[in-house]
Amino acid sequence: MPSSMNLMLLLLLLSFLSFQAVHSSSLQFQHPLDPLTKQEITTVQTVVQRKYPTSNNTLTFNYIGLHDPDKPSLLKWEHSKPGTVNIPRKSFVIAIINKQTHEIVIDLTLKLILSDNIHTGHGFPTLSVEEQNDAILLPLSYKPFKDSIKKRGLNLSEVVCATFSVGWYGEANSKRAVKLDCFMKESTVNIYVRPISELYILVDLDLMKIIEYHDRAIHPVPTADNTDYRLSNQKPPFGPKQHSLATHQPQGPGFQINGHSISWANWKFHIGFDSRAGVVLSTASIYDLEKHKSRRVMYRGYISELFVPYQDPSEDWYFKTFFDAGEFGFGLSTVSMKPNRDCPSHAQFLDVFLHTGDGSPSLLENAICVFEKYGDIMWRHTETGIPDVTELLESRTEVNLVVRSVVTVGNYDNIIDWEFKASGSIKPSIALTGILEIKPVDAKHKSEIKKDEHGTLVSANSVGVYHDHFYIYHLDLDIDGVDNSFEQTNLKTVRVTDGSSKRKSYWTVETKTANTESDAKISIGMAPAELAIVNPNKKTAVGNQVGYRLISGATAHPLLTEDDYPQIRGAFTNHNVWVTPYNRSEKWAGGLYVDQSRGEDTLAVWTQKNRNIKNKDIVLWHVVGIHHVPAQEDFPMMPLLSTGFELRPTNFFDRNPVLKTLSPNDVAWRECPK
Amino acid sequence: MPSSMNLMLLLLLLSFLSFQAVHSSSLQFQHPLDPLTKQEITTVQTVVQRKYPTSNNTLTFNYIGLHDPDKPSLLKWEHSKPGTVNIPRKSFVIAIINKQTHEIVIDLTLKLILSDNIHTGHGFPTLSVEEQNDAILLPLSYKPFKDSIKKRGLNLSEVVCATFSVGWYGEANSKRAVKLDCFMKESTVNIYVRPISELYILVDLDLMKIIEYHDRAIHPVPTADNTDYRLSNQKPPFGPKQHSLATHQPQGPGFQINGHSISWANWKFHIGFDSRAGVVLSTASIYDLEKHKSRRVMYRGYISELFVPYQDPSEDWYFKTFFDAGEFGFGLSTVSMKPNRDCPSHAQFLDVFLHTGDGSPSLLENAICVFEKYGDIMWRHTETGIPDVTELLESRTEVNLVVRSVVTVGNYDNIIDWEFKASGSIKPSIALTGILEIKPVDAKHKSEIKKDEHGTLVSANSVGVYHDHFYIYHLDLDIDGVDNSFEQTNLKTVRVTDGSSKRKSYWTVETKTANTESDAKISIGMAPAELAIVNPNKKTAVGNQVGYRLISGATAHPLLTEDDYPQIRGAFTNHNVWVTPYNRSEKWAGGLYVDQSRGEDTLAVWTQKNRNIKNKDIVLWHVVGIHHVPAQEDFPMMPLLSTGFELRPTNFFDRNPVLKTLSPNDVAWRECPK
Repeated sequence: MPSSMNLMLLLLLLSFLSFQAVHSSSLQFQHPLDPLTKQEITTVQTVVQRKYPTSNNTLTFNYIGLHDPDKPSLLKWEHSKPGTVNIPRKSFVIAIINKQTHEIVIDLTLKLILSDNIHTGHGFPTLSVEEQNDAILLPLSYKPFKDSIKKRGLNLSEVVCATFSVGWYGEANSKRAVKLDCFMKESTVNIYVRPISELYILVDLDLMKIIEYHDRAIHPVPTADNTDYRLSNQKPPFGPKQHSLATHQPQGPGFQINGHSISWANWKFHIGFDSRAGVVLSTASIYDLEKHKSRRVMYRGYISELFVPYQDPSEDWYFKTFFDAGEFGFGLSTVSMKPNRDCPSHAQFLDVFLHTGDGSPSLLENAICVFEKYGDIMWRHTETGIPDVTELLESRTEVNLVVRSVVTVGNYDNIIDWEFKASGSIKPSIALTGILEIKPVDAKHKSEIKKDEHGTLVSANSVGVYHDHFYIYHLDLDIDGVDNSFEQTNLKTVRVTDGSSKRKSYWTVETKTANTESDAKISIGMAPAELAIVNPNKKTAVGNQVGYRLISGATAHPLLTEDDYPQIRGAFTNHNVWVTPYNRSEKWAGGLYVDQSRGEDTLAVWTQKNRNIKNKDIVLWHVVGIHHVPAQEDFPMMPLLSTGFELRPTNFFDRNPVLKTLSPNDVAWRECPK
Repeated sequence: MPSSMNLMLLLLLLSFLSFQAVHSSSLQFQHPLDPLTKQEITTVQTVVQRKYPTSNNTLTFNYIGLHDPDKPSLLKWEHSKPGTVNIPRKSFVIAIINKQTHEIVIDLTLKLILSDNIHTGHGFPTLSVEEQNDAILLPLSYKPFKDSIKKRGLNLSEVVCATFSVGWYGEANSKRAVKLDCFMKESTVNIYVRPISELYILVDLDLMKIIEYHDRAIHPVPTADNTDYRLSNQKPPFGPKQHSLATHQPQGPGFQINGHSISWANWKFHIGFDSRAGVVLSTASIYDLEKHKSRRVMYRGYISELFVPYQDPSEDWYFKTFFDAGEFGFGLSTVSMKPNRDCPSHAQFLDVFLHTGDGSPSLLENAICVFEKYGDIMWRHTETGIPDVTELLESRTEVNLVVRSVVTVGNYDNIIDWEFKASGSIKPSIALTGILEIKPVDAKHKSEIKKDEHGTLVSANSVGVYHDHFYIYHLDLDIDGVDNSFEQTNLKTVRVTDGSSKRKSYWTVETKTANTESDAKISIGMAPAELAIVNPNKKTAVGNQVGYRLISGATAHPLLTEDDYPQIRGAFTNHNVWVTPYNRSEKWAGGLYVDQSRGEDTLAVWTQKNRNIKNKDIVLWHVVGIHHVPAQEDFPMMPLLSTGFELRPTNFFDRNPVLKTLSPNDVAWRECPK
């Protein structure tokens, strides 16, 4: 026990340390990968408007984000004493100014435009929320549309429209445009299941007016009955009943969030956010208890694109081949989560700042939640084989960390989890919920359907159209250092023909290191193989290359023909795995400008250069796919459908890194004395 | 509000009802699928010993289980008023009596042997725990073995041996035998990583003596350093630290267990247990809120076999091609779980009775746990597209039910979960943990390895040998009734060639109903397809066949040649999916007698009959496989590696069955007033 003198010293020291903390906080110290602050977004707006005053320019901010530092600079910053390496804060901006797409880099400290280039190639920037909000109001005051509604006997005040990207189908010229589909919100908020079909509405976004309109035919709008999902509109009986769980972490959560940096168990990483990518996890490192140091696993990970091609070739549907990240923005489409519903009661939430079309910052509360997940086993063994030893049971409870966000692009909600395990695994997962896009049909019963309706009759007059969800993860793994290689370990059958064994066969492995990008284009499931990113410059004590393995879930391959326009644009789905050399500009697997892109700037095109990827700074791209044949259970609201994969340490550690992990202390719920 | 008179009546009624409940309990009412009680096992022992007194017979009970009622009888019982249909309790017994394998059926009420047949084909029954315990002691008093140990400079009192099934490699004659491997337990309980190699020990189980012995060569035994996994033998620093979670269900758990019957949310099912199969779930039905009735989903589900072929053809290893359920018993290998470690603190446990080799009942405490799992979302949607409606966020927390058991066959621990969702899904999963089987090698470093060692050098002198884990589930689905069909819905690309669309292609579906068994042999991943068990006699309101879909995880296909002996025995792994007509005797995919079986009684053989499976009572068999290339992280104890699949309602319900499910009430942790 310290003497009172020592105690005094200790208190002094503690107050000094806490003063230091307050001090750095007062300096507004930031991690170089922190998303733009509210103030920084305002700076961007001010600086751009200074050059292009809105008094005599039309100006829309389609993207405002961090111009992230290059990797060498960031690594230098990471390994230097705080304050000694300064990384200037910069923003990368895509703005449409007087109908031209500008790429502007701004120094946020100096409040200066560093560069301002005009994009001249194909493709347009991510749609802004505001221009979409403007576009969907146009039909309501457009005479031909009002006539169509009247002709159908519908109430115009109950009509709501939504924007759909138009895609690209070989047209020589493109202009910024969206198509609109309209729906009835009468008696339901579930608009997607009540489409008014056969209306063709094309909006020119620059003119912000309807430039093409056709009313092709009249079909009944599916009924609103049983489509509303709001609790307030449900009638009893409710059920089945779910019982409550109260939770309490007496030691507090096992993680600390400091700004956007998080430390939990043996992991440290940074949670960034981008209006296009949504959640971006960076600089994830795991502490090695034996080597007494933190070892890098992932420099950066995020979902680069989500391709959702619908499979109905008809006039109303053929163009529905969405690129949700590039066209609508995964960040812009991130929604607030509800405490105790979307995340457990012991979760902590992070807010983020997004930007509006006019460049103003806008707060999104509860955009990200972080919580610890309990209930699984970390490892266990019961030994029954040692005669004198009884009751040999060792079991360690597993506590994992989950970072969750929800991206709702129109009808679908994508629940995006990143789960970290103390044993070294990162398990990203995707869960789909939300609402199907419905095509109205005349049939009330399957027996009335005589041709391919390209979907499942999920309710009377309602077809849930076939479609795919292809998520592509950008996984810039830096396994124990920047330079890595990609290894494919094939499992191959060996036939015993020399009588050396009583067996006729066995399997063994053959490891190939990918030299160039073409060696690393993998369609998973074609042949049994283990896929790993290894560091050929680092070996374990017994001489294995340190590595992380990709353990995929069930995979899906694209079914469109390779020459089809949407597949050319979504050619990054042609393989489940790709590996590229790190290139700061190759962030978006479908290209930087995806709206009406022509597939000229995709992962499939970049890799045609067939660059060297051996012992280089490399990026792993992984496509997680779901072919979706809708079922009636998906109507009017889809229960969660989950998939995912695991990045698992494979000879990264010299042995099980959680052998000396203790299970959490048992804590009982204590009833309060009455 | 009731008048006091009505209140009195109500109380009277309630007391009457509770009296009824006590009354039925006092009758010791059992479900016909309940596992044998302690008393019933004793009855079996008594009845068999009466016919074969141990005074003049050698008698080993290799299997004592419920002779389960045939399905029509059980369905009749289920649909009748309690007490009106009597299903006689019977036991099926496999006993080795005077070296002959007897199959005995016993009426447990009458205490009579109903039949007693001698098995004359190939293959032997499941090994008894006791005979294995006897066998492993034999070397310790066997002079040549003691000499071998001495020659190696090892301490005999630190040697422990373990039994290994011998397999079948084309031998014309078989006798009941096991091979022994021996290990050093000096300074560690992790015996599997310290094998004494190159000793060949063959034990005749009938004679219970060593009948063959060779000492082929001397290799060093890998060190005990860093191999013990017991907390008591770990030195600090411990870590990483995990924080505790206290949980409390203020309304109690959401499930009720009555004997072996469980009801939870909208599900009801029966948890059985069998010394061979382990946990057996039966008569699972889900309550349909709209149809106001309970609808059958699964008549029975369990893991029928686990095939673990190692991939080293050498003398020490070639025979290691284990069938864990048939050779060792999944039930006999089920171990007690530790509360708060293997299952969360709010779990409830079930005990089971197993039998010993002499036919006595033996209690296994905490063999099964049941708990509710929180933290995921059931469904959610944020609607941002309706201009006047703000903050439209509906989200339902998901509570799932998990039934867990752990099967530890020697070194490996298999965590077997069955997860039920109120949305109708059943998600079985397997997680592997425990200890690798290690082959000692001279090499301390990978650079010293010059030939294929058939594994990964996971530690100095220690190779983790390549192997597979193939689990086959017996899934007797009865989708809304007994007669079902199997449908394969292929997703196929359609090329647009008539200019009818701006698209060049799309995909659509083509559903084929399997007529016979050969139509339903599926290797998943070869072509995109949805696989479903449907009831062709029941349709939804809009005319879809009611069904359940199998959503597989990543799959593995066998890599041994089809003519290789272990593959002939494990031919049920040749496909990931099989469908058979229900046949009471076809329970074990590798055959009833798997020890030294010759592959004559496997799923692959049964299905050669190519029986009709259309609109019949059918069974779905699903193989979940893992190719295991060991990694250093698996040493000396493997962190959990998980896989699984989902049985998901697909047009079973007319719509999302949990639309009217309320999230559990929010309950806050209340600090007690001080």
